[in-house]
Amino acid sequence: MTQAAIQQPTTCNGFSLLALGDTVEQVTSDPSLARAAFAVRSEWKGAAKVESRVTGYELGGQSIAREHVIHSDEPRELFGQDAAPNPQELLFAALNACMIFGYACKAAAMGIEVQRLSIETQGSLDVRGALGLADVPPGMLTMHYTVRIKAKASAQQLRELHESVMALSPNRYHLTHPIELVPKLVIE
Amino acid sequence: MTQAAIQQPTTCNGFSLLALGDTVEQVTSDPSLARAAFAVRSEWKGAAKVESRVTGYELGGQSIAREHVIHSDEPRELFGQDAAPNPQELLFAALNACMIFGYACKAAAMGIEVQRLSIETQGSLDVRGALGLADVPPGMLTMHYTVRIKAKASAQQLRELHESVMALSPNRYHLTHPIELVPKLVIE
Repeated sequence: MTQAAIQQPTTCNGFSLLALGDTVEQVTSDPSLARAAFAVRSEWKGAAKVESRVTGYELGGQSIAREHVIHSDEPRELFGQDAAPNPQELLFAALNACMIFGYACKAAAMGIEVQRLSIETQGSLDVRGALGLADVPPGMLTMHYTVRIKAKASAQQLRELHESVMALSPNRYHLTHPIELVPKLVIE
Repeated sequence: MTQAAIQQPTTCNGFSLLALGDTVEQVTSDPSLARAAFAVRSEWKGAAKVESRVTGYELGGQSIAREHVIHSDEPRELFGQDAAPNPQELLFAALNACMIFGYACKAAAMGIEVQRLSIETQGSLDVRGALGLADVPPGMLTMHYTVRIKAKASAQQLRELHESVMALSPNRYHLTHPIELVPKLVIE
């Protein structure tokens, strides 16, 4: 057996296991390094069009510059021009992406190689709520999602992975728990 | 005074007031037309990369085809390649976009011309939660946002608009209320 054959794998699911281990060690020994602060500035572009920008984030008190733009609009039937996904679709994408990252990353930590992974989320609302036309909630009470996974693991391990993501996904937490939203109105 | 000068405006903030009025009338007379169902399918693309797709939505039982793609990733320090915004940033963009639409649309209904409108949202979490390293919540307990608005309206009218959006924005509702997330795991 060659030296290479007995070495531990250094990556799993595209993640560096060394980087994962280093981060775990760092945030465990100094919890102040574990604070991640995100910010998004969104600007109205007429009718239902919005342009949202990320210019950076903070990790462990350090500012890290990044540049990303997220466009949104509404479908034509809901007063937009359908130039981009709408806010509810962005929300579903945010939920799915967070959980998918959770499955892939936790699987890597468990030594499970994921071959295919997708999530489809669905939900409906009554637009009379948001329009203030009826005493119905403005949003969805329930969202359904289906996780499809193909991985080199037992059904038991995959159910354990599934339970872990349900417990630990940040955006799943944000939707299943009431978050305090603190507004400030500035009239210019 | 010419005929044009005494006509009511037909658009406000880029919205057709006729279309707004028609929709209000339709969903009020037949509430089944008010049901909007959204769906997003997200696929893992290796490590932290996710590609989310919208292929359509349903309004009042009618399927309407649309095509949109939303990319996400994580910053390099959080095991990604920073190719796109991360899931928490998508969530903030979803919140901001929904509220901005609310301000612009409700303002149009109130006859208020908006000149400039932006929202910046911020929040932080302890990554030890999502990594399962400490008994801390995986997500944020609080998010702060600042709405900046310049419009042809009194401060009193703008505060009324602000209250209305807080009460009626779907994505604000989704974050401030616990939503039931119903998962289905399919092992392939």
